[in-house]
Amino acid sequence: MALNRSTIAALVGELEALGATEQVAPEAGRRSAGRPSPVVRADSAGPYVVAADVGVGRIRAARILLGGEVAARATARVPDRPDPVETAAVLAGLVEELTASAPPRATLVGVGVGVPGVIAKTGGVVRVAPNLDWRDVAFSELVAAHLDPSVPVLLDNDANLGALAEHLRGVGVGVDDLVYVIGLVGVGAGFIVGGAPLLGAGGYAGEIGHMRYRPDGEACHCGNRGCWETEVGAVAIARAIGAPAEQVSHLDEVLDDFDRAPEALREIGRHIGVGLASAVNLFNPRLVVLGGYLRSLYRLVGDDVDTALEERALRAPSQTVTVSLPGLGDDSVLLGAAEMAFAPVLADPVTVLSGADEVRA
Amino acid sequence: MALNRSTIAALVGELEALGATEQVAPEAGRRSAGRPSPVVRADSAGPYVVAADVGVGRIRAARILLGGEVAARATARVPDRPDPVETAAVLAGLVEELTASAPPRATLVGVGVGVPGVIAKTGGVVRVAPNLDWRDVAFSELVAAHLDPSVPVLLDNDANLGALAEHLRGVGVGVDDLVYVIGLVGVGAGFIVGGAPLLGAGGYAGEIGHMRYRPDGEACHCGNRGCWETEVGAVAIARAIGAPAEQVSHLDEVLDDFDRAPEALREIGRHIGVGLASAVNLFNPRLVVLGGYLRSLYRLVGDDVDTALEERALRAPSQTVTVSLPGLGDDSVLLGAAEMAFAPVLADPVTVLSGADEVRA
Repeated sequence: MALNRSTIAALVGELEALGATEQVAPEAGRRSAGRPSPVVRADSAGPYVVAADVGVGRIRAARILLGGEVAARATARVPDRPDPVETAAVLAGLVEELTASAPPRATLVGVGVGVPGVIAKTGGVVRVAPNLDWRDVAFSELVAAHLDPSVPVLLDNDANLGALAEHLRGVGVGVDDLVYVIGLVGVGAGFIVGGAPLLGAGGYAGEIGHMRYRPDGEACHCGNRGCWETEVGAVAIARAIGAPAEQVSHLDEVLDDFDRAPEALREIGRHIGVGLASAVNLFNPRLVVLGGYLRSLYRLVGDDVDTALEERALRAPSQTVTVSLPGLGDDSVLLGAAEMAFAPVLADPVTVLSGADEVRA
Repeated sequence: MALNRSTIAALVGELEALGATEQVAPEAGRRSAGRPSPVVRADSAGPYVVAADVGVGRIRAARILLGGEVAARATARVPDRPDPVETAAVLAGLVEELTASAPPRATLVGVGVGVPGVIAKTGGVVRVAPNLDWRDVAFSELVAAHLDPSVPVLLDNDANLGALAEHLRGVGVGVDDLVYVIGLVGVGAGFIVGGAPLLGAGGYAGEIGHMRYRPDGEACHCGNRGCWETEVGAVAIARAIGAPAEQVSHLDEVLDDFDRAPEALREIGRHIGVGLASAVNLFNPRLVVLGGYLRSLYRLVGDDVDTALEERALRAPSQTVTVSLPGLGDDSVLLGAAEMAFAPVLADPVTVLSGADEVRA
């Protein structure tokens, strides 16, 4: 985190005094030179956040401690094109369920939510989430209306949160330039550039699914033609494998049943590599992380993706880029949402945590 | 520059003591409330840099003072596919010419060079410059070999430098998210994201000309097919207007002779807008600045560019983006190269300038 020893010591001291963490002796089996450093561990009865990953057809949520430890999970089904007000109520129900099962002394310090859509940098508004059929939805407010007013509800694009989590705790630790690409129904991306999240002027950056890929291509739900998403999105994949339309929202499970890829799927793998080459030429990342159904797909057609990317990207950036599965499995978005919700606590632990008893939902 | 008053005062004091700047009374015609602030002006006999913009067929160079004032200019012709060693000698000749005409007390503190190619973040190596036909050329070293060893020679991609200059002194002052797109023979881009230059892991970011635009498109010099550059690059434009191949390297002048755009040029304007829409969806910039021959082209087909961009970009980012001509005219790259060369001086004026008498070339 680019902090020096004394800053870390002061922060650890503050967090411990506030009951957020405890220091324990390192494991006996670990040997290293010098005095062993104490291990700081989140106190399971300390502050926590609830993180939620709003997908198509379901919301996954978890109670998460400082440091990213998942203490409890809860899931709810929602309709494929859910009403925002009802979705907010369902999500708030998951927050309550996870809060009710927490240790008595533990305190909720924030709620972080990932949504597959274009999210404004300020104000927690979903500008557009095509796969949910939402437009200009003040989703933070809708969720917060069900909770104690002092609990902040923070919102971001799911791929941005996936990128953040993979950078902080996953396969991208120590990697300052990476892209996390998520296939859900559409395809989105979050970028870490020079060690910081890429937001863009309004927070809308990362819409990789809407790179122009084929000028005369198929109509895209965004109103245009030939977006990359029309070639490598869930609808195109379902068609390639002859899967019925209702499987589009859980394509990852469908793909996990394949032993080997039919030719039509390998063709999609090549289109994934060619599209990634555009992003590699533009961003020169060290790492490309594939999440959502792209995880399942990459297991089947990874060679096709890698070969097309290497052939189609410029030599200099292609020599140093690696394509990888997420280090956090299916939890990247959830853990990124937790990091976002903890950020105000880490920025100012005393103010947030000393008032924390009053912020129980 | 995000510095407070006392830091600025200290820096100004240091620079003045070292003969780099002088404070003068504000112009009589300017009226504002309160005590008039003294105006700090670069001392024309103070430290300077030589900036160079290596293009196809010519090198433009200038002696530039702190603050971006151009004190003198010099230009040299080079072959269209120039030998790197000879090009370095020509460039060093321009440095000598500009140094010879400087006031006796003035000191050269650095040389900054912009090259249309993929430049490594460290070491001053051109990995590939397709329009110069260079590959893995240690161009900084080649230039530095002709100069006093204590004069640093810094190198960057021309579009990166254009973006930097437009952000610091041009149409992008105060704009933290912008892209500067330059049409030379190929098409490149430099990005400012969150107020800082986008470099990528190795310094290779910004290769917008090699976004995949048409999978079955024309062969590109990069070895692939259907790159955006094959649709909107100088070769495509020359073909559209029936210009002979030898005009490709000075297409800006050719385009400036047109009063109105033929349909084939308007079609290219639309392809520019559609390609920019991909970049806008990925980066969500506030500003797109068009440099090189795209300046001349935008004057002719600006409406076609704007309309296609607005239609093809997602609503949220397209509502807040503006396409603009450069604020620095044809000098963006040159002034960016000067900023790069001055950066070590501004970071540590005392060390650099107190030894400056010895670094005359």
